[in-house]
Amino acid sequence: MNTLLLNSINFQRLSYLSIISHSLLIFTMSVPATAVTPPLADDLDIVIPTIRNLDFLEQWRPFFQPYHLIIVQDGDPTKTIRVPDGFDYELYNRNDINRILGPRSSCISFKDSACRCFGFLVSKKKYIFTIDDDCFVAKDPLGQEINALAQHIHNLLTPATPYFFNTLYDPFREGADFVRGYPFSLREGVTTAISHGLWLNIPDYDAPTQLVKPLERNSRYVDAVLTIPKGTLFPMCGMNLGFHRELIGPAMYFGLMGDGQPIGRYDDMWAGWCAKVICDHLGLGVKTGLPYIWHSKASNPFVNLKKEYKGIYWQEEIIPFFQSVVLPKDCTTPQKCYVELSKLVKEKLGPVDPYFVKLAGEMVTWIDAWNELNPSADVAPVKKTDAVAPKKK
Amino acid sequence: MNTLLLNSINFQRLSYLSIISHSLLIFTMSVPATAVTPPLADDLDIVIPTIRNLDFLEQWRPFFQPYHLIIVQDGDPTKTIRVPDGFDYELYNRNDINRILGPRSSCISFKDSACRCFGFLVSKKKYIFTIDDDCFVAKDPLGQEINALAQHIHNLLTPATPYFFNTLYDPFREGADFVRGYPFSLREGVTTAISHGLWLNIPDYDAPTQLVKPLERNSRYVDAVLTIPKGTLFPMCGMNLGFHRELIGPAMYFGLMGDGQPIGRYDDMWAGWCAKVICDHLGLGVKTGLPYIWHSKASNPFVNLKKEYKGIYWQEEIIPFFQSVVLPKDCTTPQKCYVELSKLVKEKLGPVDPYFVKLAGEMVTWIDAWNELNPSADVAPVKKTDAVAPKKK
Repeated sequence: MNTLLLNSINFQRLSYLSIISHSLLIFTMSVPATAVTPPLADDLDIVIPTIRNLDFLEQWRPFFQPYHLIIVQDGDPTKTIRVPDGFDYELYNRNDINRILGPRSSCISFKDSACRCFGFLVSKKKYIFTIDDDCFVAKDPLGQEINALAQHIHNLLTPATPYFFNTLYDPFREGADFVRGYPFSLREGVTTAISHGLWLNIPDYDAPTQLVKPLERNSRYVDAVLTIPKGTLFPMCGMNLGFHRELIGPAMYFGLMGDGQPIGRYDDMWAGWCAKVICDHLGLGVKTGLPYIWHSKASNPFVNLKKEYKGIYWQEEIIPFFQSVVLPKDCTTPQKCYVELSKLVKEKLGPVDPYFVKLAGEMVTWIDAWNELNPSADVAPVKKTDAVAPKKK
Repeated sequence: MNTLLLNSINFQRLSYLSIISHSLLIFTMSVPATAVTPPLADDLDIVIPTIRNLDFLEQWRPFFQPYHLIIVQDGDPTKTIRVPDGFDYELYNRNDINRILGPRSSCISFKDSACRCFGFLVSKKKYIFTIDDDCFVAKDPLGQEINALAQHIHNLLTPATPYFFNTLYDPFREGADFVRGYPFSLREGVTTAISHGLWLNIPDYDAPTQLVKPLERNSRYVDAVLTIPKGTLFPMCGMNLGFHRELIGPAMYFGLMGDGQPIGRYDDMWAGWCAKVICDHLGLGVKTGLPYIWHSKASNPFVNLKKEYKGIYWQEEIIPFFQSVVLPKDCTTPQKCYVELSKLVKEKLGPVDPYFVKLAGEMVTWIDAWNELNPSADVAPVKKTDAVAPKKK
């Protein structure tokens, strides 16, 4: 490779970067909302699972208002969830889920934030950002409010580098690049499918750690985004998460948790394990790090322990299982990968507990539902999708 | 695993952490040097390759003075290198290297900082910290001078976590832990063999990137240490590097670079690729991130390009080679691993260029020299080691 070519690659990358930075900068600078279209305003839905009034949105208003919200109401469907004025949203409660999915609604968890994945299913957008309703706007070390959504968008719109570690972290960030010794053939990177954000204040600990360290707070702002290397699993938290719905949405199933299930608080973990092995297989990237949100409230560790305890020992078998998963070459879509994965789950984890046989079945149901509500772009939408009639404000 | 057991593990970890933090804290607080022994003062050598007077040590005095220095003088052996008063050091020039290693001195590069590995060879300590003479004390965002050595020691004395990614980075740091979903069976971690530090100001870029971005400076302080996952390679820079000499020293050979060789500036990369696959094989950990040093001077990109250009295209074959290396199970020491690796280098990279056949040969010479100068602890030291008579101050 000659220097001229290298320069051309770098310049290309630079201009690519500056276009993105520029549009994000304009957005962040709060020029009157009418003057500038926020990035991906027509291509991204914000999915929020909740059981309460969404007053937390007030703090997010400057950042979220230009976007469409999909609210998945968990628990009692007769309860009215108040959404602050001025937000564009659709809201689904359990009755809506049952109506839209019919018998397939069995795959959507009840009384657990795992129900959020219903929002991924009914979205028609290319990207999803999902956030919990106890997450608020964090501040960076300079005291500036962090536009978490803008950072996720930046993460998703710049490539990831899963095949070799860059010691200065995200090479697509301003002021950074690939360091000496990074192979040039790998510098184009791959498309980013997942952007996993972090939490200041209450860290995302399991019940045993909560019990042991009840007072621990995360006050460390680590100013980095990095790609989780190919072949490495990570604990994906659903609290503050962006992803490319078209590329990895079908793998973002949050499993069977909560009411009637033997386990809770492993919904996002399950989705993370599945999505990571599928991203690795499909050559997609997964990033973690910035943005931070402010996680306001620690959940009850005793309640959590009850939800988690089976997961805590099951995961000792689940992790080696996912580490060993090899998907066939002809699995070229996330749907195909996911169905194949469901077979492996049934075969390899079924012996651990009958729960996994049931889960494997619902993984297939989920894909059936996905395919029904998301017919391929090259196929005329099937009539059934008309059934998705959200309560639009 | 029951909660009691989990708690006991966590408490154990906490007290372990607090002992280390405490001793580092005492050291950092600059209590009179006579009152407290700095951590590992008798177990760590600082290795510095140089061609000039070591005035840079003045700035490091508060942090380095309690430690022993091994200075490897590159280039003209008749030149006198000035070392500031008050440092305990031994210095080796090319004549010393030739005298001590005899015909085996062929494995030590000349006119290249790759010669630093001679210092690893003659050290008798458990740990090594190596630093370039254009690296100065950096400041953290609060304006405090960073004791890079203390951070490396902390990194080396706390476990690494190569088998699963922790999204809050180093779980063994105060104020952090393993997040929800991290398997408990992996929380003990593994012994850390390498601590790779970073650079503020002049980033470690290759010649093409230097040429394209001559003014780029690294001003981002990323407050994190993380384990590079198993199976992932990284570009290891020798500028600011700590390692466990007993566990991985034999793999820290910096190759054939500089005078008479077709390549330069790949010495640390070579050591990094070899050391990482051997750490992965032996179940040892590699960390990167903190500490930062202040890298003062960009080297000449035109000179660098001349040194690097073969490496830039060779690495396109070298990286896939290292990614595919599988070492036999009976390779249970770094020496055995390294000799095995040399055979693979000869076989697989020899066809790329005859240089790699020569390099493979010197890899074996290096291990012969290592074994001669470092007889196993359970074997009486061989007479030959007495030949290592450093110029002790």
